[in-house]
Amino acid sequence: MPAISKKGKHLPESPIRKLAHFANQAKQKGIHVHHLNIGQPDISAPKEALDVVKNSTLKLLPYGSSEGSISYRTSLVNYYAQNEIDISPEDIIVTTGASEALSFTLNCVCDAGDEIIIPEPFYANYNGFAAAASVRVVPVISHFEHQFKLPDLKEIEAKISAKTRAILLCNPNNPTGYLYTEKEICALGEIAVKYNLFFIIDEVYREFIHNKELKHFSVLQAKGLEDHAIMIDSVSKRFSMCGARVGAMVSRNKELIATALKFAHLRLSPPTYALMASEAALNAPKEYLEKVISKYTNRKETLMKALQKIKGVEVSNPTGSFYCMVALPVKDAEDFSKWLLTDFNDKNETVMLSPAAGFYSTPGYGVNQVRIGFVLNEKKLLRTAEIIEKALEHYPNS
Amino acid sequence: MPAISKKGKHLPESPIRKLAHFANQAKQKGIHVHHLNIGQPDISAPKEALDVVKNSTLKLLPYGSSEGSISYRTSLVNYYAQNEIDISPEDIIVTTGASEALSFTLNCVCDAGDEIIIPEPFYANYNGFAAAASVRVVPVISHFEHQFKLPDLKEIEAKISAKTRAILLCNPNNPTGYLYTEKEICALGEIAVKYNLFFIIDEVYREFIHNKELKHFSVLQAKGLEDHAIMIDSVSKRFSMCGARVGAMVSRNKELIATALKFAHLRLSPPTYALMASEAALNAPKEYLEKVISKYTNRKETLMKALQKIKGVEVSNPTGSFYCMVALPVKDAEDFSKWLLTDFNDKNETVMLSPAAGFYSTPGYGVNQVRIGFVLNEKKLLRTAEIIEKALEHYPNS
Repeated sequence: MPAISKKGKHLPESPIRKLAHFANQAKQKGIHVHHLNIGQPDISAPKEALDVVKNSTLKLLPYGSSEGSISYRTSLVNYYAQNEIDISPEDIIVTTGASEALSFTLNCVCDAGDEIIIPEPFYANYNGFAAAASVRVVPVISHFEHQFKLPDLKEIEAKISAKTRAILLCNPNNPTGYLYTEKEICALGEIAVKYNLFFIIDEVYREFIHNKELKHFSVLQAKGLEDHAIMIDSVSKRFSMCGARVGAMVSRNKELIATALKFAHLRLSPPTYALMASEAALNAPKEYLEKVISKYTNRKETLMKALQKIKGVEVSNPTGSFYCMVALPVKDAEDFSKWLLTDFNDKNETVMLSPAAGFYSTPGYGVNQVRIGFVLNEKKLLRTAEIIEKALEHYPNS
Repeated sequence: MPAISKKGKHLPESPIRKLAHFANQAKQKGIHVHHLNIGQPDISAPKEALDVVKNSTLKLLPYGSSEGSISYRTSLVNYYAQNEIDISPEDIIVTTGASEALSFTLNCVCDAGDEIIIPEPFYANYNGFAAAASVRVVPVISHFEHQFKLPDLKEIEAKISAKTRAILLCNPNNPTGYLYTEKEICALGEIAVKYNLFFIIDEVYREFIHNKELKHFSVLQAKGLEDHAIMIDSVSKRFSMCGARVGAMVSRNKELIATALKFAHLRLSPPTYALMASEAALNAPKEYLEKVISKYTNRKETLMKALQKIKGVEVSNPTGSFYCMVALPVKDAEDFSKWLLTDFNDKNETVMLSPAAGFYSTPGYGVNQVRIGFVLNEKKLLRTAEIIEKALEHYPNS
């Protein structure tokens, strides 16, 4: 048999989806699985987005522009302007999800063997995209007990080598829920300039802030980073359109965008129906997003209170996104998460969690932690906390 | 400014889309551009596919399964069975277009520096996907004067090195229109087994055969290739749904599919609306595809006759797909193609062609050739032949 690539063999399994098989088996046994593992919103998408597809008069599905239509990119420019981000349509490549934007970005800035620095824990799929591009992830630890704020700049500088090509962040953060401050972004930006690195920020949770005194600061708002800053975006979470697969890569660096366009030409175009929906979603009234964010904030409060009551459980306090990190009184959170699906149920219900070790790149970190997404309504979230509490009482390997 | 990756700098521009900028400028001047450059069908998609999306009751767009729903994969198994291809749902990973299927495949079988052998001319984007994966394309020339049939097996064997990981074909071929025979596929399959290589065939034009005595033979029908054969597929051309971005990677090699699933998990899922449409398209009556193919066959006859009448023009005789290769009486077909957009029009109309040099990997080959897609109706095709004839009379650099 011909051999599988080393890259493919060593590609880490997604911690978010690796237990999917066990969840399916539980469902086949008639057990209801509450999904806290995946960032799959349950809130309705904007009516404008759904209607434009339902009213479509397309007779066939044509390729779109590889970089996204000028009409959609112009609408995006207006959306960014409302968020105090001043860019032009030429700075945008529309992508098939933030996933593709990340993949284009890594391919544009790294060759095989190059390195990128990421504070850990980080969105687990960064590991995978890096592996796919034969790029090495160099993690810098950020700590649960400090709410996962940016690690000390000296620790970051110490990791920069001749092979370092970029620093990558997610802000607000997935999986930690931490919102990086303007000061933190600007300080990291100075390091990017000093060492001539790209500075990539994944801002797909831009609006999801749970504290009215805090404000999102985009990497594209930082001064002096024109050639360095790359912003990754997506409609998935903002408009409950994960299945649309529409994202964007945004940068004022013209050579970078010209290179990304070549990768975009390669895969022809993003999906047609999804682009129509994404453009229409931007016409949703302002109240749409306000309501969505307020729902997530209420859920966060409810879930945190419920989890904090469970003996031995510690919960991070997320200021953004819709995730939190939870430390459990177990030795191995992956074993516990699997056991929840294979050996436990409470009144025929159980919970699927994302073991957090997969969000760390350093072996041995986060083994007792899980990531929880508050993507269920408050009643269901209270029920999941109850199930987790009961499960912890019965779990044999704690 | 931080440096762009070498991979990104050297990524070849798509010959299909590289002149898009000049086409846009022509359009801005009010000139109608007939697109012969791109494989963008103009025939309606199945009503079943369009209706299912229009009647959708989705309230939000959820992620789908990374590998494609069991329902869609089961429908695909039935479709393949009708094409005498016997596989099971576990052998299929549903992808975001054939583009992603190719990208997953290369990542699963090659590491940076590995080689794949492809008869040239080949679908230009193979060059790009290989470059993105840091894989070297080793071409073997197939000749215009032999209708681009498979090169001599000894020439292929001579190119196999310790770094060779796979042989890649498109059947029926894009850009040449050649339909490889069962004998050719089986002979190449024996080489794949002998040298322990993967054998990848892109079969997105499976049904598009213009000679009723000929029959498509799938790589999955060849005996003894269970671990070697990988089939790439897409709904784009079959159902006039290029903008759906739904394809598939199919193989009976379980380790390969398990690895591809990890890459599939990474990018979460293919686009939701497009998957609904793709599944529904399989319910279109048999007559749908029969009519589509007969239209393309008629167009082929019409276009070939018209082009053959032009002085100095030679046309390949495509038995499959909807492309043909055309040798023009010019020194540089790219310069001619650009000139058509920037300096020529006939009654405010011009034609966009794909310069064929980009479909060859060996420098200097195909420089006087273009690829033409017969994706316009017969009346328009006759008009494009007329425009090309007039343009050749006026072109100053022939």
